[in-house]
Amino acid sequence: MRDIFNQELKQLGSDLETMARQVATAIERAAESLSNGDIIIAEQVIDADERINDLQRDIDDMCIMLLARQQPVAGDLRNVISALRMAQTLERQGDLARHIAAIARGRYPEPPVPEPVMGLILQMADAAVRAGADVARLIATHDLELAAQIQRGDSELDSLHRQSFQMILDPAHDLSRQQVVDAVLMGRFLERFGDHSTSVARRMAYLVSGGAPG
Amino acid sequence: MRDIFNQELKQLGSDLETMARQVATAIERAAESLSNGDIIIAEQVIDADERINDLQRDIDDMCIMLLARQQPVAGDLRNVISALRMAQTLERQGDLARHIAAIARGRYPEPPVPEPVMGLILQMADAAVRAGADVARLIATHDLELAAQIQRGDSELDSLHRQSFQMILDPAHDLSRQQVVDAVLMGRFLERFGDHSTSVARRMAYLVSGGAPG
Repeated sequence: MRDIFNQELKQLGSDLETMARQVATAIERAAESLSNGDIIIAEQVIDADERINDLQRDIDDMCIMLLARQQPVAGDLRNVISALRMAQTLERQGDLARHIAAIARGRYPEPPVPEPVMGLILQMADAAVRAGADVARLIATHDLELAAQIQRGDSELDSLHRQSFQMILDPAHDLSRQQVVDAVLMGRFLERFGDHSTSVARRMAYLVSGGAPG
Repeated sequence: MRDIFNQELKQLGSDLETMARQVATAIERAAESLSNGDIIIAEQVIDADERINDLQRDIDDMCIMLLARQQPVAGDLRNVISALRMAQTLERQGDLARHIAAIARGRYPEPPVPEPVMGLILQMADAAVRAGADVARLIATHDLELAAQIQRGDSELDSLHRQSFQMILDPAHDLSRQQVVDAVLMGRFLERFGDHSTSVARRMAYLVSGGAPG
């Protein structure tokens, strides 16, 4: 019984790793489609989101099945509940990457916003890409130093987000209304992507340390 | 043992009802602060969000405790997992109500955006207020007809959201950049509030019918 359970927990961890890697790829490609105006890559991100959603449903089903059949307690229970929640968060991050790719696709072949606003959005996108990659590594390694680093990185993303509003509102930068709309939405999507990365990092810290929940 | 469990499940349901009512009040007041420019009400929404967050933590703790101690299966397990997720969704809806109130407060004593854009935003806010009230009733009654109604109401909110972009982009409407930014953000927050209401409705339908999960 315990052997099967351990095997199932291992499978759950491995599915979560796969999902986190797919989300990391999604945000990386979404950022690429923004910076290169590459519509093929934008389409890939949009299509691939279905697979991320499928993985979430699989992980969900597996967690419920594990809870029902194995009735885990203590650390094992925490493990399963964390997986359930992290999968939900990763699914949402996949949606956000898709939304960003959709803006890149919608403005093709132009960049969605002109410089210097675009430069700041791309800086935010870089930070989100780093967060996505770090979360994938964190889920694979359970490295608490990495969890702390993700949380620090999110303050940077929040600060860039605040700067983006100043830049959007600065009349010295020539922006059409569509560009203002796109810049606000991209900023919001990237900031939320960062928030979700932090949420995974906090949950992982809770899971590993048994400390306060995130 | 079963008696205690039933009592605990009842407490969980009652806490979830309280939380849903607080979220319904939050969005109602946020909408009021938008339409009347009432800064006192806006402040109330912002302050009250802490209590919604506290309730989520309580419900979380209770769910984990129930899973660990009672090891529920079948319908009971579904009940606890649904509560865990609905609380998470309601918490997020509380944040969105707070964000809307913060925009109302930030532009005081002016309305955040001029007519006719404001009219459309207020229509969205009305739809969100109805969704919030319906979700609170749904959680109290488990009425599947109400769940279906919430899902229909969300299509209306989505359609208003699309119209809001057309209106924001229409050069015939005089808007400053700050007003474009605020209109985009309010539209986004209200649309997400509606999405979350739908997510609760779907979960409730799943819980009651035992059908496909939402």
